[in-house]
Amino acid sequence: MHYLMRTEIGEQPEVLRRVADEEWRAVQTVAQQIREHNLQYALLAARGTSDNAAAYCKYLLEIQNGFPCGLAAPSVVTLYRAQLHLQGALVMGISQSGQAPDVVEYLAHARANGAFTVSITNEPDSPLAQTSHFTLLLRAGPERSVAATKTYTATLAIIYLLSEALSGRYDAPQRIHQVATLIEQVLQQEPLIHDLTDRYRYMRECVALARGLNQATAQETALKLIETCYVMCKAYSVADFMHGPFALIEPGFPCLLFTPDGATFPTALESASKLRAGGAETIIFASDAEILRLARTPVPMPNAIPEPLSPMVYAVAGQLFAYHLALARDLNPDQPRGLQKVTKTR
Amino acid sequence: MHYLMRTEIGEQPEVLRRVADEEWRAVQTVAQQIREHNLQYALLAARGTSDNAAAYCKYLLEIQNGFPCGLAAPSVVTLYRAQLHLQGALVMGISQSGQAPDVVEYLAHARANGAFTVSITNEPDSPLAQTSHFTLLLRAGPERSVAATKTYTATLAIIYLLSEALSGRYDAPQRIHQVATLIEQVLQQEPLIHDLTDRYRYMRECVALARGLNQATAQETALKLIETCYVMCKAYSVADFMHGPFALIEPGFPCLLFTPDGATFPTALESASKLRAGGAETIIFASDAEILRLARTPVPMPNAIPEPLSPMVYAVAGQLFAYHLALARDLNPDQPRGLQKVTKTR
Repeated sequence: MHYLMRTEIGEQPEVLRRVADEEWRAVQTVAQQIREHNLQYALLAARGTSDNAAAYCKYLLEIQNGFPCGLAAPSVVTLYRAQLHLQGALVMGISQSGQAPDVVEYLAHARANGAFTVSITNEPDSPLAQTSHFTLLLRAGPERSVAATKTYTATLAIIYLLSEALSGRYDAPQRIHQVATLIEQVLQQEPLIHDLTDRYRYMRECVALARGLNQATAQETALKLIETCYVMCKAYSVADFMHGPFALIEPGFPCLLFTPDGATFPTALESASKLRAGGAETIIFASDAEILRLARTPVPMPNAIPEPLSPMVYAVAGQLFAYHLALARDLNPDQPRGLQKVTKTR
Repeated sequence: MHYLMRTEIGEQPEVLRRVADEEWRAVQTVAQQIREHNLQYALLAARGTSDNAAAYCKYLLEIQNGFPCGLAAPSVVTLYRAQLHLQGALVMGISQSGQAPDVVEYLAHARANGAFTVSITNEPDSPLAQTSHFTLLLRAGPERSVAATKTYTATLAIIYLLSEALSGRYDAPQRIHQVATLIEQVLQQEPLIHDLTDRYRYMRECVALARGLNQATAQETALKLIETCYVMCKAYSVADFMHGPFALIEPGFPCLLFTPDGATFPTALESASKLRAGGAETIIFASDAEILRLARTPVPMPNAIPEPLSPMVYAVAGQLFAYHLALARDLNPDQPRGLQKVTKTR
C-alpha cells in the first residue's frame, strides 16, 4: 500500500480515537458558550469535502438538538459585499487547511456582524483558526492526499461530539471509540470491495443516493469518485431524485445507495425497489438483508450502528470503493488531474 | 408548437406581468408582517424545481436584505421527528401544486413551533396554502407540462418582489415588467438556440456552472436537461467546481456556463478561461463579448440586465436549450419517462 490516499484511509480509526480523547474538553467548552450566548440558529461555511461534512452537521444539530442550521453562501459576502444581520447566529467555518480564503473572509464578516464564530480545522495556526472565537481541532496529522479522507471523518466526529455536548450527554467519546472499531470492520471488507470494483471499470456516470444524515455520505462518495475516478457522479437525496432525475433511470444505470438502519430506512427500501424495477444497476451499502437482496452488487456493512454514527462508518466504505475503482481504471488516486490540495476561492 | 412545455415557456412574459400587477399588494403585506415580527432568519422548504427557486431566494434575501437564509431539510421533521426551535424564524414553503406532503408537514411543524410561515404556490386552495399564515400566489394558470417552466420564473418574480418590498422600494412591479420584455428578447433567440442544440445530439453528460444568484439557473437548467433529455447534468457553483470536480475536465467535456454581468462576472471569466485551456466544450450564456469569445458555442443574451433580475431571463434560455435538445434527440419533452407531475415524498 504505497498510495497516500490508502494510507490515510487506514489511519481513520486512530484519528477518531485521538479526536475523542483529546478534543472532547474543548468541544464541551464551545457547547457551553453556545448555550450561554442563547444562539438561535447556525450557518455553516465550507467548500468541497468540508461542505459535505457541513451537510451532516445540519442534519445532526437539527435532529438531535432542534437547532436550525443552514449552509452559508460565502460569495454573498466575498463578491456581493452583503451586510448580514447575524446577531444570535452561530457561524461555523470548516476547512481542514484553514486556508480557504472565502471561508476565512466569511467568518471574519460574521464575527464583525454579531455572530458567535467557531472554526473546525486541522491547522491550529491557520488564518481560519485565528479569525474565529473558538477553534476545534481535527488532530488528524498532516493530510497529504489530495482526496481528503481522514479529515472528513474527523470533522464528522467533532460535529457528533458537539451535538452530544449540546445535549448534555457525557458518553460521546466512547461512542466515537465504538465508531473506530466499526471502521476497522469496514477496512476488513477491503478485499470484497476490491473485487467488486472491476465490474465498474468502464462506468462513465452514476448517481449516489441516500437520505437524511447519510446524504453527506452520498455527496462525499460522489466527490471521491469524481476526483479519483473521473466518473460523473451526482449525489441526490432519494426524495429529490424521485422529483425529476428518476427520468435518468434506464436498464443498467448505476446507482449507489447508502441505506443504513434508522428513520430513513423505509423510504430508502421503497426507492431501492423502484430503482430495481426500473432496471437500475444497484450498488447498495447496507446491513439489512432485505435491501441487500435488491442489490446487483451488495456491500454488506456492520450491523446495529446507531444512525447518527453511521455516516462516519459508511463514508469509509465509499472511500474504499472510490480508491479501488481508481486502481481498477489504472488511475493514480494521489494525482487527480488539474487539482491542488488547497483550493483558493475568492 | 404543440408541446405543452413550449407553450408554457412562451407564456412567461404574460405570467410575470400578471404576478407583478396582481400580487404586489399581497407581497407588501407579507413584507410588513416580516418586519413587524422582527424575524431573524429564514428557512426555505421545497423540492425539485421549487428548491432551485429557493436557492435564488437565499442569495437574494442575503444580498439585498442582509437576511440570513438556509434551505430546509424536510426529512428532519417528517422522518426524524425533530422538534425544531423556530421562534424568530421565517419559514417559507414553495410548491407550485401546493401538494408536496413533506413540504406541507414541514410548514405545519414550523407554524406549531413558533415560526412565521409563508407559502408560495400556484394553488390558492392547496394544503400548503391552508397550512401557512400567508400565501403568495404564482398566478401562472394551470401548469400541465411535467417539466415546470412558468411556475419557476413566477416563483422567482414573487421572491424578487418580496425582497424589494422588504427594502421599502416601490418600483419592483415595473422591474418585473422589464424582465417580461427581456424574456421576449430571449424568445426571439429561439431559432439560434434550436440550431445550436444539434451539436449536442449525442452528449451523455455535462456540467452547468454559475455563481451566486445564477446558481439557481445552473441547477434549474441541469434539472430540465435531466428530465427532458436524459443527459446526466450536474450543476455546480464555479467555486465548488474548482474544488475537486474540475478533475472531470478533459478535451470535449461539455460545460454550460451562465455568466451575466455583475459581481460574480470576474470569477466566472477566470473559470471560463481555465475550462477553455483544459479543452472543455464551453457553452456560454452571456452578454459580455469577452467571455463569449471563450465559448465553443456562444449563446448571446440581452445586455445590461441588473444581476438580481438576470436569473429570470437566463432561466428561459436554459429552458429553450433543454427543450430543443430534447427535440434534437427525438424525445417528447412532455413525457419524461418515469415521472408524474406531482411527486409525493413522505
